[in-house]
Amino acid sequence: MGKKNAVVLLSGGIDSATCAAVASDIGFNVYALSFDYGQRHLCELECADKTARYIGVKDHKFVKTDLASIGGSALTDNIKVPDFKNKSNHIPVTYVPSRNIIFLSIAVSYAEVIDADDIFIGVTAVDYSGYPDCRPDFIDSFNDAVNKGTKKGVSGNGFKIHTPLIDLSKAEIIKTGAGLGFDYSLTSSCYNPDVKGRACGKCDSCHHRKKGFADAGLKDPTVYVS
Amino acid sequence: MGKKNAVVLLSGGIDSATCAAVASDIGFNVYALSFDYGQRHLCELECADKTARYIGVKDHKFVKTDLASIGGSALTDNIKVPDFKNKSNHIPVTYVPSRNIIFLSIAVSYAEVIDADDIFIGVTAVDYSGYPDCRPDFIDSFNDAVNKGTKKGVSGNGFKIHTPLIDLSKAEIIKTGAGLGFDYSLTSSCYNPDVKGRACGKCDSCHHRKKGFADAGLKDPTVYVS
Repeated sequence: MGKKNAVVLLSGGIDSATCAAVASDIGFNVYALSFDYGQRHLCELECADKTARYIGVKDHKFVKTDLASIGGSALTDNIKVPDFKNKSNHIPVTYVPSRNIIFLSIAVSYAEVIDADDIFIGVTAVDYSGYPDCRPDFIDSFNDAVNKGTKKGVSGNGFKIHTPLIDLSKAEIIKTGAGLGFDYSLTSSCYNPDVKGRACGKCDSCHHRKKGFADAGLKDPTVYVS
Repeated sequence: MGKKNAVVLLSGGIDSATCAAVASDIGFNVYALSFDYGQRHLCELECADKTARYIGVKDHKFVKTDLASIGGSALTDNIKVPDFKNKSNHIPVTYVPSRNIIFLSIAVSYAEVIDADDIFIGVTAVDYSGYPDCRPDFIDSFNDAVNKGTKKGVSGNGFKIHTPLIDLSKAEIIKTGAGLGFDYSLTSSCYNPDVKGRACGKCDSCHHRKKGFADAGLKDPTVYVS
């Protein structure tokens, strides 16, 4: 029996790269899916491309989805990306309304076209920024909805959305990828890189990345501005 | 108290136009949302624009979402749109994988940005083409998922997805809109119009439109090629 196909959401960051490495390692043909959604940190798409090539994916689609025209986030609008603040139960301005819902919906569409049962998303409910669309009860509920609302779902053989990183801390995620031989210098995490693509070192995402490498006892290959 | 805001998905066809007319009639400020998703019947976006102006919406967003790059449908790919065939339990090649799931996801994003609790979609489970994402159990399940996966949903005041046409036949939908004074000459239904934008008269969607007007006892303003 040949390998099964899986769609893997790939953003260019640590989590999705690790998720793709895991999917490949456990024996799936990886079909990577990335989005140009009007994000100001567009350099992440170059990282997604490098990551996909390194892992050796079967195909890699880049889909344009103009979420900037809807707005509402510091990642797409002209709103200042804030420095990291240690606040619990707080959803920051970098939240892009319904982003994972939209990305997962398009992943389901792609999976339906290539007849893949399996979809991977590198969300984590541990060291994350408090986005509600990273939580397990949302993922389960969404999985249930798409199995009711798609040709493939109602024809019997439904989709399974995999979240292999959901219970891992950032340090554990980095150790997992490093253990599979993944090279994190290919990834980018910063929400607010400078014109040369260098990470700001101050935003939520830089904070989690720095701390993750430190906690994992591994060297962070990132060049930070500060 | 002022009027409440609602996002209404508007395709340029009969159902979504009626849905927008209903939402406006029952007292919502309508924020229309249309998609350029690579469909070959792009003239429907002109109809969406005319419909929105006729109804007097508060705003109308057109979002580009490149579903053609994923493919898998006669509506986006170079696959022949078939003539209508009276088959039950059959999902035709005009099915765009996960289209309503994707459109509803983006509607939720827009609703979150304008702080609207209400989203309207003109799906009908009666005279439809057998698309699974038009069924009530999908809509309920998806509504549940987005209330778990969005900032607005988890903050207490969740979304309500309205489907005012779900139990209506095409004839009943047309009578509803006509009763509200809506002018259906502004709409377009054909999946496969010619270069002048004239309806083919043969596809599923033309069939349902013709039959709807006939059953409603009203004149169909459409110019059909055949």
